[in-house]
Amino acid sequence: MTTNPISPTIPLDEDGVHHGFLRLPWSRDDSAWGSVMIPITVVRNGDGPTALLTGANHGDEYEGPVALQELAATLKAEETSGRVIIVPYFNYPAFRAGTRTSPIDKGNLNRSFPGRPDGTVTQKIADYFNTVLVPRADIVLDFHSGGKTLDFLPFAAAHILDDTMQQQACVAAMEAFNAPYSMMMREIDNVGMYDTAVEDQGKVFVTTELGGGGTATAKSIAIARKGLRNVLKHAGILEGEPETGPTIRLAMPDDDCFVFATEEGLVEPCADLGDTVAKGDCLARIWPVDRTGATPVEYRAKRGGLLAARHFPGLVKAGDCLAVIAEVVD
Amino acid sequence: MTTNPISPTIPLDEDGVHHGFLRLPWSRDDSAWGSVMIPITVVRNGDGPTALLTGANHGDEYEGPVALQELAATLKAEETSGRVIIVPYFNYPAFRAGTRTSPIDKGNLNRSFPGRPDGTVTQKIADYFNTVLVPRADIVLDFHSGGKTLDFLPFAAAHILDDTMQQQACVAAMEAFNAPYSMMMREIDNVGMYDTAVEDQGKVFVTTELGGGGTATAKSIAIARKGLRNVLKHAGILEGEPETGPTIRLAMPDDDCFVFATEEGLVEPCADLGDTVAKGDCLARIWPVDRTGATPVEYRAKRGGLLAARHFPGLVKAGDCLAVIAEVVD
Amino acid sequence: MTTNPISPTIPLDEDGVHHGFLRLPWSRDDSAWGSVMIPITVVRNGDGPTALLTGANHGDEYEGPVALQELAATLKAEETSGRVIIVPYFNYPAFRAGTRTSPIDKGNLNRSFPGRPDGTVTQKIADYFNTVLVPRADIVLDFHSGGKTLDFLPFAAAHILDDTMQQQACVAAMEAFNAPYSMMMREIDNVGMYDTAVEDQGKVFVTTELGGGGTATAKSIAIARKGLRNVLKHAGILEGEPETGPTIRLAMPDDDCFVFATEEGLVEPCADLGDTVAKGDCLARIWPVDRTGATPVEYRAKRGGLLAARHFPGLVKAGDCLAVIAEVVD
Amino acid sequence: MTTNPISPTIPLDEDGVHHGFLRLPWSRDDSAWGSVMIPITVVRNGDGPTALLTGANHGDEYEGPVALQELAATLKAEETSGRVIIVPYFNYPAFRAGTRTSPIDKGNLNRSFPGRPDGTVTQKIADYFNTVLVPRADIVLDFHSGGKTLDFLPFAAAHILDDTMQQQACVAAMEAFNAPYSMMMREIDNVGMYDTAVEDQGKVFVTTELGGGGTATAKSIAIARKGLRNVLKHAGILEGEPETGPTIRLAMPDDDCFVFATEEGLVEPCADLGDTVAKGDCLARIWPVDRTGATPVEYRAKRGGLLAARHFPGLVKAGDCLAVIAEVVD
Amino acid sequence: MTTNPISPTIPLDEDGVHHGFLRLPWSRDDSAWGSVMIPITVVRNGDGPTALLTGANHGDEYEGPVALQELAATLKAEETSGRVIIVPYFNYPAFRAGTRTSPIDKGNLNRSFPGRPDGTVTQKIADYFNTVLVPRADIVLDFHSGGKTLDFLPFAAAHILDDTMQQQACVAAMEAFNAPYSMMMREIDNVGMYDTAVEDQGKVFVTTELGGGGTATAKSIAIARKGLRNVLKHAGILEGEPETGPTIRLAMPDDDCFVFATEEGLVEPCADLGDTVAKGDCLARIWPVDRTGATPVEYRAKRGGLLAARHFPGLVKAGDCLAVIAEVVD
Amino acid sequence: MTTNPISPTIPLDEDGVHHGFLRLPWSRDDSAWGSVMIPITVVRNGDGPTALLTGANHGDEYEGPVALQELAATLKAEETSGRVIIVPYFNYPAFRAGTRTSPIDKGNLNRSFPGRPDGTVTQKIADYFNTVLVPRADIVLDFHSGGKTLDFLPFAAAHILDDTMQQQACVAAMEAFNAPYSMMMREIDNVGMYDTAVEDQGKVFVTTELGGGGTATAKSIAIARKGLRNVLKHAGILEGEPETGPTIRLAMPDDDCFVFATEEGLVEPCADLGDTVAKGDCLARIWPVDRTGATPVEYRAKRGGLLAARHFPGLVKAGDCLAVIAEVVD
Repeated sequence: MTTNPISPTIPLDEDGVHHGFLRLPWSRDDSAWGSVMIPITVVRNGDGPTALLTGANHGDEYEGPVALQELAATLKAEETSGRVIIVPYFNYPAFRAGTRTSPIDKGNLNRSFPGRPDGTVTQKIADYFNTVLVPRADIVLDFHSGGKTLDFLPFAAAHILDDTMQQQACVAAMEAFNAPYSMMMREIDNVGMYDTAVEDQGKVFVTTELGGGGTATAKSIAIARKGLRNVLKHAGILEGEPETGPTIRLAMPDDDCFVFATEEGLVEPCADLGDTVAKGDCLARIWPVDRTGATPVEYRAKRGGLLAARHFPGLVKAGDCLAVIAEVVD
Repeated sequence: MTTNPISPTIPLDEDGVHHGFLRLPWSRDDSAWGSVMIPITVVRNGDGPTALLTGANHGDEYEGPVALQELAATLKAEETSGRVIIVPYFNYPAFRAGTRTSPIDKGNLNRSFPGRPDGTVTQKIADYFNTVLVPRADIVLDFHSGGKTLDFLPFAAAHILDDTMQQQACVAAMEAFNAPYSMMMREIDNVGMYDTAVEDQGKVFVTTELGGGGTATAKSIAIARKGLRNVLKHAGILEGEPETGPTIRLAMPDDDCFVFATEEGLVEPCADLGDTVAKGDCLARIWPVDRTGATPVEYRAKRGGLLAARHFPGLVKAGDCLAVIAEVVD
Repeated sequence: MTTNPISPTIPLDEDGVHHGFLRLPWSRDDSAWGSVMIPITVVRNGDGPTALLTGANHGDEYEGPVALQELAATLKAEETSGRVIIVPYFNYPAFRAGTRTSPIDKGNLNRSFPGRPDGTVTQKIADYFNTVLVPRADIVLDFHSGGKTLDFLPFAAAHILDDTMQQQACVAAMEAFNAPYSMMMREIDNVGMYDTAVEDQGKVFVTTELGGGGTATAKSIAIARKGLRNVLKHAGILEGEPETGPTIRLAMPDDDCFVFATEEGLVEPCADLGDTVAKGDCLARIWPVDRTGATPVEYRAKRGGLLAARHFPGLVKAGDCLAVIAEVVD
Repeated sequence: MTTNPISPTIPLDEDGVHHGFLRLPWSRDDSAWGSVMIPITVVRNGDGPTALLTGANHGDEYEGPVALQELAATLKAEETSGRVIIVPYFNYPAFRAGTRTSPIDKGNLNRSFPGRPDGTVTQKIADYFNTVLVPRADIVLDFHSGGKTLDFLPFAAAHILDDTMQQQACVAAMEAFNAPYSMMMREIDNVGMYDTAVEDQGKVFVTTELGGGGTATAKSIAIARKGLRNVLKHAGILEGEPETGPTIRLAMPDDDCFVFATEEGLVEPCADLGDTVAKGDCLARIWPVDRTGATPVEYRAKRGGLLAARHFPGLVKAGDCLAVIAEVVD
Repeated sequence: MTTNPISPTIPLDEDGVHHGFLRLPWSRDDSAWGSVMIPITVVRNGDGPTALLTGANHGDEYEGPVALQELAATLKAEETSGRVIIVPYFNYPAFRAGTRTSPIDKGNLNRSFPGRPDGTVTQKIADYFNTVLVPRADIVLDFHSGGKTLDFLPFAAAHILDDTMQQQACVAAMEAFNAPYSMMMREIDNVGMYDTAVEDQGKVFVTTELGGGGTATAKSIAIARKGLRNVLKHAGILEGEPETGPTIRLAMPDDDCFVFATEEGLVEPCADLGDTVAKGDCLARIWPVDRTGATPVEYRAKRGGLLAARHFPGLVKAGDCLAVIAEVVD
Repeated sequence: MTTNPISPTIPLDEDGVHHGFLRLPWSRDDSAWGSVMIPITVVRNGDGPTALLTGANHGDEYEGPVALQELAATLKAEETSGRVIIVPYFNYPAFRAGTRTSPIDKGNLNRSFPGRPDGTVTQKIADYFNTVLVPRADIVLDFHSGGKTLDFLPFAAAHILDDTMQQQACVAAMEAFNAPYSMMMREIDNVGMYDTAVEDQGKVFVTTELGGGGTATAKSIAIARKGLRNVLKHAGILEGEPETGPTIRLAMPDDDCFVFATEEGLVEPCADLGDTVAKGDCLARIWPVDRTGATPVEYRAKRGGLLAARHFPGLVKAGDCLAVIAEVVD
């Protein structure tokens, strides 16, 4: 059986603050004996729960990386009780390229689990987390945003799970995060997701969508930063109570939430994120890119609710998701 | 002397509504006798002033294209008095690629004027407008936004010109546009700009910055649509009075408005668009992309004012403009 | 067990004419929630046999796509008895790129069967046809031509099969197609072919080679169109008798049919498609591309027959098939 | 004044057969002190007229290169009277890449005259021919075909010139070539053409279009080979009389000869090369590439005549020339 | 079970000198029926041992290819006793591209064993050697150098093996090679290596590292040429005794031999190949590429010994191996 | 007249040590308001001569950049008398890419002088040096090596100039540099060179070739470092006498020094740098890359002397310079 070739340059299980790398050997044309160097910080202070914190699972999502870099740079061992493993740039090659997937192998890390120790670079990263880091964790927080091609209302999320106890623990952690919106998600296609891999190991798991477009703002970073510390407090690793505030509960009950484009063109959004829409409302119009004087194609809501996500770029291709309508749960 | 090879497939000077193309012959590996086909609509109703309206001067800016496509599709000759020339996709190859500059020749159309009839594709477009369309116009409106790499507060703008009368006419048109913000700009580098080429022909010229990030929203499109019709009313081409509302007057008095990055990294914005900042306030921090545990570099305001523009992507390169502070003119 | 993620936007099993898409979710850097949208038309009129018709299995072959688009646009339910499933652009990403294989994963669809529901985009398409569409079919017609790098005499083809009854049914369908040439093929390398996958399900299968070079002509399209309707008549789905005419029967009995280049260079064809050649005749000469004054290398026929296929581009690389000699069967 | 940096490795003005190169220094990333080596053969036998013979002016046109390679490899000095300068691969970098234009600078050699000694690689080649080789020539034959994106009826051509005597000499040379078709061309855009540069030096000039699609056939090569030797006989460089046969005279009188696509799509040709068409006949239909069930767009002849040229690839883009109708001159 | 599709164009098992190809069918966009043609020479003279000789396992390593081309061009059957199989360009697509890995599939051939008959091009080559050629061999010599990104002291090498007898035979062959240095290697990661695949079949195996940087010198080629003939003499295939000379024995006992960069930058080597260094000596400094005035980062030896390998390019990326220190074995 | 848009972020004419950038605005798709930031250090101590020191004129040459980074990081104002302007990365975009020419515009900086203020990025850099920095200098030292594709004996060089006094001053500076070899060069093609632009302003100019292959060694850096300080001492900017040692004087008297390849292939060098060769000696052999069993082509010396430069990569293309023979001047 093949061993995962990744080796940490710092101890994972010792007390103190350690900054270093997960070194993944990567032989290639421009470096015969090269490596991918994934930055990692481990802060540990005696026995106690372990939190595994990741950003840039998709390489073009930035709230998590900023919040985690700040945590890594400022967290002191004596402030903690237990262990915090911080990996701000999970799919590191994708993060460096500013792309959703890895430029090395086009790997979508969040569809690559459980990974393979002898697979592509992305599969090796997945396997290392699945076999080395996740087993060490009690609670796992994985930051997402919409990336360059989607934009989301800021929410933390938990999944509906077969194990009710585990689901309650996850919901409690999501509530501790205390984002402006809180989403109960039932993933339509969870094959290969990190979420599923973590949940399958019985861990408490929280994920987020905190904005998008391939940028972050002072406001969206503040949400990430508060939620991050709230979760660590909730886990008992940091002292004190989570900082609370109002949150709106959302759900995506069925496929009618999604509107897909069936032609390419220039997008005219007819509603903005957070707008309330009724069934049949026009969500967007698509104008032709090769002529003037033609009529645009209208895309209408298949159900009412809140506009929770939207296609971000000004141009759209056939098959792109144009809009997502979420249900407000009272 | 070389003639510009572009030919319109519709009459430019006849009454009625005509939709067609500016055909620019473009011989290349994948089409020996190919062409660039720039969509154009001309609406004319007797003598009267001519407005020349353009979007996608930079190919990744979308408010103008959407507003102009709608105008081209809906404007009737009998509603107008004079002529409206509508080119929603000015640098058409760039627009199709979703990029600021042309994928054919990397031409930044707004730095390519006065152009050349025997130059690159971008230079030929510039020359055609400079010699054929701008001379036909009385008022010129050119839509801009921040594109994929910048984000702006929504404003219409006029330039400080040597000819006071011309400047007043431009300011009046900018005021008619009635965007949420109105900016008096003194361009630092106006070599090759369309703006300058138009102004040098003594025309009334209005430009805008209406958002950015390579997207548009229902809100930003509404600003473009209202401004567009307001300008046509102001010019006497459409009937009625411009629709008015409050606008905040801004200015960019000197180079201290601009803050440039001197290292690459992960951007943490510390202020958002429209925030009021004081001299010395932190505008952004840059975190390293290759390690954890290091201190971020802070970028501070060199003067007080409103945050009027910002770097959009989550990653930044040395030399990128991080932020622009505008002065509020009371 | 993983389910194939492709979903049709139209019913496959209902009466009437339905135009829509096979939607294949495809998350990528330029569309996080994007899809490949493969156009499909299903025409059904009560119970009766099902024909599955495909073009652009290789993306640069055009007779099938044109004939099938016309059929999809004109066929009425009441003209049919049974069902016609029309997919003019089988390997859709390859078709859009104008290339033999998919630009997404370099997948040669005709070497990707039986496919995988959790594989690459091309493998997912293969799996969907293999598990969803082919099982619904009684007769399958898959159009091929030479593509950009080969040129063929126009023929319909059937394979020699272990099941004599099935082979006879295939030959009968090939004869019904009634192309100018009819070829009995024994594939040298049939691993991964759609042909084999279909035949393994016991279906009647007809394939073609109708020209090549990455183009189609009025003549070659007429052959496709006639053959297509002939096969539907033969299957009893359309009324009437197949339109008949002369056909020349060909065979490719062994490896001596093929002539491969062993150097790169400029090709001088010494025989054209359809020419009769004797063993030892010069089929082509290869001239050096880097000097003048050198002697060309001659490639001679290893057996006599008809020149049935040839390398198309003016330049050739070592290893390319230069020519195929077919045997005329009585 | 800058000198052209190209140097021949063989003498241009000495008796005998010399094979060598035009060496063009080309410093670049993969060769600091590299060169472009353009193969050339000079055959000279005493005083007498000079013929300058070129193929691959566009790099994807193959009849000329094959005929000229054979001539260079077989012509003996004693067979000639005067001089023959043979350059089978005129735009050599384009020829090696199999593309119309140069991969180095995207230069279309036939739009780069008179060239520049200090310009791009393509401009340097143009300048060298314009200042060194053309002045040495009495008669110039430049082979063309349609390349990868166009297909032509096989014709030799002469231009209508201001100097009637020169025009007659060119027409006589075109007739000596004796292709199946002979075309009187009035170039619509002759800026930068080699043709014009040669004619401006008062030389006899013949050009051709001998097929296309990026291939050559035994038949089209035979036309080139016969025409080549005919022209040398006509010029008195080879002994004997030109080999004659029937030719059909054509003309392209005005812009109505050309039909351009205004949308992208899948091409269905409705007429083939050499077909006689009447005004209003359908020349081609364009089918959508993104859906089934839609109506194709028809393109009709704007005048009657012979289909003399057509778009070659199965896909077409807006702006591509779809068809050319020539007038038969009785 | 799938058969490997590679077929040799020459007999592998007949007496005499045969030059030909291993033909690997490779269908692709630019050649539907194309092949990879790997040059091979087999020289055989009756029964006797078989040597399998390979260069360019990594495509940018040149001593082996030159020495093997010369051997293939000059070796006469009557000089030999047994058989010599010569493949100068093992990973042929990589060799043609001048890159370590294959441009077709990015395959590192030396990490692709045992390969797959139905895999990528690189995997097919591996499988063919593993199942067809290695089983025919008694002794296997595989030439390596550092390639474009590493530089090595010139050494032949043998591995520490579980089978002491086999190890002794390998060491004896390494000594027969008689390079300036002789290295006992214990590979850290031997998954997928050709070395291991050969050794697992019980064969005598010798490998080398003879320089690097993507070049070869007269000196390094002389080492390869002498070693090659020495090994054939040692195997009894060529007559005579190996030519002997001094060699320095080296070992790489543990991971402290390797020094990896943890930042990108401009490399300043502080020791050259062959220099003796002590633990703590500075091996290299890395200067920032984006500013002046900063302090370089120093990389120091973790153990003493000889500098046996070093990073070659002037720029370095985080994760690249900067230096290898070998122990001199007295 | 256009002004050069480059602005320094530090004072050029003030006392002290200043580290900063030459900021060159560069608007592009991935940064609308981006810049090229060229690192620069200016050290000044009162009036006195100015030395302008540059490395990476070609981006893949490393001795100069390392020596200049060290000087910039360590030189104190009080050690100097006059001014030192240090630009370690002259063609900065090329240096970052590790390529000879700029990835932005393919500009070879050393063929771009005098440049243009409104030209490409490379031309703007040339213009800025030509109009702003060179005029400030008394002595100019520009470091070169062979880059990735050539390798040189280490020499400093001066040119033969029309102005004998200026030439003597340049030779004296070259001698002060005291490299192992000293070369009197007469450039064959000096159009656009920085050298010529500097000399035309009457400045003392020294250049070097210190190795090559795209790497540097401890030894070659030591030569650069010593030469650099020697030149500053010679100029009176640093105190003390230049450190002296033996140097061998070389010359390249005519075109017979250069040997060019006329075919592509695998290079077998038959002599190494520094070897003495006689006229007719074999310098290299080229083996075919597409077959075994063929005879190599030999390239022989056209004159005797020292092998002073050679083609570096293992593969060669037609037109590449294979070798340079220099004459030893006693």
